[in-house]
This record gives sequence, structure tokens and C-alpha cells, in this order.
Amino acid sequence: MNATANQKLDANLIAMERAALDRWSKGDTFGFLEISAPDVLYFDPYLDRRIDRDELNRHYEALRGKVANKGYEMIDPRVQKIGDAAVLTYNYVAHQENGDTGMNVTEVYRKNGDRWQIIHTHLAFTKPGNS
Amino acid sequence: MNATANQKLDANLIAMERAALDRWSKGDTFGFLEISAPDVLYFDPYLDRRIDRDELNRHYEALRGKVANKGYEMIDPRVQKIGDAAVLTYNYVAHQENGDTGMNVTEVYRKNGDRWQIIHTHLAFTKPGNS
Repeated sequence: MNATANQKLDANLIAMERAALDRWSKGDTFGFLEISAPDVLYFDPYLDRRIDRDELNRHYEALRGKVANKGYEMIDPRVQKIGDAAVLTYNYVAHQENGDTGMNVTEVYRKNGDRWQIIHTHLAFTKPGNS
Repeated sequence: MNATANQKLDANLIAMERAALDRWSKGDTFGFLEISAPDVLYFDPYLDRRIDRDELNRHYEALRGKVANKGYEMIDPRVQKIGDAAVLTYNYVAHQENGDTGMNVTEVYRKNGDRWQIIHTHLAFTKPGNS
């Protein structure tokens, strides 16, 4: 893959992620479910362990309508590509009524035909002791 | 890759990770540096953003001798393989003088010739509000 194709892929994955984040900002948690694979494995700081797709469906159904924010920033997104895998990492800041929340975000995407899907999500508070 | 080869790879990556964790338990943070790639990107809950290899070298140099524990558990490790990439995830519990610390761990490994190296690490407290 040449440099131009790589830049196009980076932009493509970042656009997919932003589209799901835009829906998240409106309380719609299903944008991420729609681009996640059946074998996705998931971490976030509200859970006491890693969960799988069935548990993620229930988790995001329960959060539907409860996660809205007044806007967000995706800070310094980077894509590391390895064949049909791509690791997108960034720092996320959500602007909320009671202040900002910062998250460290990892999304591992896998190419399936022409389509990229998330096979792993890891969300965590950025330096939670100081937030 | 057939099922037996996949199982062998899983066991191999988990053994690499355990070897680095064993050194970590003794305060030796360099085990992870030795199996990390020059282009590694890294998150942990003590940092206010993602860092790169040079910053990770300094971070782990500063932590050398300060991270010892009395043993640890690697809970339910899973490997997701995509060509020359492999995503290892698990829940980690370190037994320390003042109690246990739980972490969500993501390691993305990339194959480089016959060698696997970490290109992304994401460490986060498991449900920090409740720990």
C-alpha cells in the first residue's frame, strides 16, 4: 500500500469513528454497535472485566439516551496499519454540562471484504485521579 | 493458519507477555521495552495523553524499581489474530502490600520476520471508581 492509499485509509477510518462519535454525542450508542464485529471484545471503565458482543449489546442498549454531550474533540488520531488490521488511537474529550471528560481510546479495526469493522475497543479515563 | 498453529501462537504471545510481567513484578520495567517496537504507541492511567517510544523509554526508566508486586494474575487472556497482527487482551490483578490493583490490558503485537513485537499498549484501571 503506497503513502496516498495509507492516507486515504487513515482518513476513512477516522471518518467512520467520527460518524459514530457524532451519534454518541446525541445519545445514540448504536453507531458503534453497527460498525463492530460479532467477535468484538470490549473494555471500558464502568465494567469490572472485558466483555463480548452479547454483553456489549446489552451495555449499549442500557446507555442509549444517557450519554449525550455538548460536543467533543478527537485529539491527535493515529492509525497503525498491519495488513488487514488497523489500530486507531486518540485522546477524546467530551464537553458536558458538569465539565469535560477525557478518555484514552483504542479501536482495532479489521478489514472484511471492502468493509472495516471494530474487533476491539478499549476506553479508559485519561489520568482519572486528576480528572 | 490452522487451529493448532493458532493455539501455538496464542500460547507463544501469552508466554512473552508473562515473561515481561514476571520481570515487572520484580520492579524491572525493561522487559516490556525489549519486546516493544520503535513505533509503539502507549496509554496508561498515570499519563495525560498517549505517548510514543521515546517518552515510554523515559517513563519506564523512571518507574524502574518502583513497580514491584507480590504476584499477579492474568485473567482470561484472549488473542485475536489478523494476518501479521495479534491483539492480546486480559484482566490483570497485581497483589500489593496495600491490596490488589486491577487493570484492563490491551497489547497489539505485530510480526516482524520471525519476531513478534508490541506496537500498542493500553493499560487502564478496572472500574477505578470502585477500586
